[in-house]
Amino acid sequence: MISKKMEQLGKKSSVIREIFEYGKRRKAEIGAENVFDFSLGNPSIPAPPEFGAALLELIEKSDPTALHGYTSAAGDLSVRARIAENINSRFSAGASAEQIYMTCGAAASLTISLSALINEGDEVILLAPFFPEYRVFCEKAGAVVRVVSCREPDFLPRAEDLSAAINEKTKAIIINSPNNPTGVIIPKEKMAEIAALLSKKGEEFGTDIYIIADEPYRELSYGMEVPYIPNLYDNTVVCYSFSKSLSLPGERIGYIFVSPRAKDSADLFAAVCGAGRALGFVCAPSLMQYAVGKCIGLTSDIELYRQNRDLLFGALMDIGYSAVYPDGAFYLFLRAPGGDAPAFCEKAKKYELLLVPGDSFGGEGYVRISYCVSREQIERSLPAFKELYKDCMGEK
Amino acid sequence: MISKKMEQLGKKSSVIREIFEYGKRRKAEIGAENVFDFSLGNPSIPAPPEFGAALLELIEKSDPTALHGYTSAAGDLSVRARIAENINSRFSAGASAEQIYMTCGAAASLTISLSALINEGDEVILLAPFFPEYRVFCEKAGAVVRVVSCREPDFLPRAEDLSAAINEKTKAIIINSPNNPTGVIIPKEKMAEIAALLSKKGEEFGTDIYIIADEPYRELSYGMEVPYIPNLYDNTVVCYSFSKSLSLPGERIGYIFVSPRAKDSADLFAAVCGAGRALGFVCAPSLMQYAVGKCIGLTSDIELYRQNRDLLFGALMDIGYSAVYPDGAFYLFLRAPGGDAPAFCEKAKKYELLLVPGDSFGGEGYVRISYCVSREQIERSLPAFKELYKDCMGEK
Repeated sequence: MISKKMEQLGKKSSVIREIFEYGKRRKAEIGAENVFDFSLGNPSIPAPPEFGAALLELIEKSDPTALHGYTSAAGDLSVRARIAENINSRFSAGASAEQIYMTCGAAASLTISLSALINEGDEVILLAPFFPEYRVFCEKAGAVVRVVSCREPDFLPRAEDLSAAINEKTKAIIINSPNNPTGVIIPKEKMAEIAALLSKKGEEFGTDIYIIADEPYRELSYGMEVPYIPNLYDNTVVCYSFSKSLSLPGERIGYIFVSPRAKDSADLFAAVCGAGRALGFVCAPSLMQYAVGKCIGLTSDIELYRQNRDLLFGALMDIGYSAVYPDGAFYLFLRAPGGDAPAFCEKAKKYELLLVPGDSFGGEGYVRISYCVSREQIERSLPAFKELYKDCMGEK
Repeated sequence: MISKKMEQLGKKSSVIREIFEYGKRRKAEIGAENVFDFSLGNPSIPAPPEFGAALLELIEKSDPTALHGYTSAAGDLSVRARIAENINSRFSAGASAEQIYMTCGAAASLTISLSALINEGDEVILLAPFFPEYRVFCEKAGAVVRVVSCREPDFLPRAEDLSAAINEKTKAIIINSPNNPTGVIIPKEKMAEIAALLSKKGEEFGTDIYIIADEPYRELSYGMEVPYIPNLYDNTVVCYSFSKSLSLPGERIGYIFVSPRAKDSADLFAAVCGAGRALGFVCAPSLMQYAVGKCIGLTSDIELYRQNRDLLFGALMDIGYSAVYPDGAFYLFLRAPGGDAPAFCEKAKKYELLLVPGDSFGGEGYVRISYCVSREQIERSLPAFKELYKDCMGEK
């Protein structure tokens, strides 16, 4: 018998993927321009031109055996040094190349970090709503998931809920700010409160509790500061990805930063290296390492996402919908009129609107709208959102 | 407490890596041209020019959001179709795109396949000598490793040894042909014998035993046919990589082919998808998927490795060394004069020869020589090999 767990995981395609497949069929039927697909978090803004130029230069000017050869398992040292330098110039976090481990993107950053930290049966706290794959990654690493619900008005965790969820088995909490699916950024005071609580509980239980800071959306903030967690809490592992900041989701390139202030930081970094090795990662794709190394500090034209956010949020609120204001990422978490998100999403299909129910994110009653789409799609979709709202209100 | 297992794995750098690091220091001391480094399996022959051209064309002519965007989790369908077509044109294996899962290289192919197959406590048979990471991958997937030793004169497994190692817990055997570190190719008759034995034992125990065919060296054969295992045994999963065939080890690009003749093939493929997802692979690097898709059937100039093999093998035998003749890969497994491989490798350092003891491969008494180096390095190293031999024979 093969692994039934893995088989089921492979067969149970995610809700997002199902809607995406429906969208593909529907676009073939009525034309792509007539389907308003807000289902996927696939960056719509191209990589900055410097990135393409960096790729071309590398390919044209490098010895191919070096360019496409193995880097050290943790990544090319000069690239890691440039990343550390960037972290320090922005956040004064005392980073050095020796604490940076290059990965095949955010998912790899997470599975490697979890595998480095978790002993079978340890608990990991997830703040709902959360990216559904977190649960898959945690369980594969042998962890037990504990969910703490965040709700309106701000979708921030309440100290008493978090406190109640922590026990002697708590090994880590995944913090995702800016958040997928709400777009919420955890303000500095709230992060400091969480940090203080984790420290207190760690002392109380005589344990080390780690924050895994999942930061693929760090650069997608439209004005609000995104607190740098290693500066607020010592036991922090940052999982970063260039997927959204440089619009390279398919290239699978990111890094793990083990804070030098984490307990036994060097041992933890060794465990990250060991986990990467055991999971089969060898090294992050070499050409992409060198290319992002030449583009550290650059981003795609994030301003376009801000404009999308402003346009869509404003228009939807005008229609009568409600949602928490998203300060970052490229998601809007809309309250489903009537409260039944799957039913609302089904109804939305009648208007060719593809939205994702929040249920699989642990956000029942809400739908996720990915606004990493063209401005034109948003503009053209607004009458459909209006009709849908009327339909929900019984005005049709 | 973090995962001590992962920490140790990260700290215990492999023997190969240690020698590599020694080589780096030594090259800095006396000049790279004076160190004869035969330690690493890093292709020395560049990717074919068509590969660089494919990369440039993709970058110059594609929409960057599509080029660098997510592909489907199993990989771009047209690339998978081209791979299936190539498999069929060469081996008539009845492959279709739906059985091909694109991976981040051979290591990922292995960890994903193992995770798809293994239930905690299942056994996996390794044929020694074997690539040391096999053990790491198997144990991480929850498998118990059983080693079957292959020895001279041919380094092929003997039926009675293999038979004795199979029990009701045997889930898989990893077959690596051409082999790292011996360079041996398993001939068709021997593969058929292994297949028949696995079938018989599977019937006897009422179990399904799978062959995981690890084939990064498939294209590196210097005349001898490398039997295509799915044509000899139904329950086969092929783990392929373009690292050696196209000289792209750093780019991490390969695939898994689940034979359509494997039992419940579609379920197994689903398990592969589930395992890839749970381990954090998302999709194989997109640019590399498209680029290898344009180069299916091409290889680097493998003839140069054959010339290296002929030169080095001939010269070493003339000196007096002995080794099994390597029909493929770019390794030569030399009998250590005196029988103590680590001591022989230490002595070799005096002559600036960097060789890897076979011990960590489960091949005590032998050393691995990677001849994926320049012809010039081989030519210049021969006097050193001669002096080393004299030293071992007490002639110095």
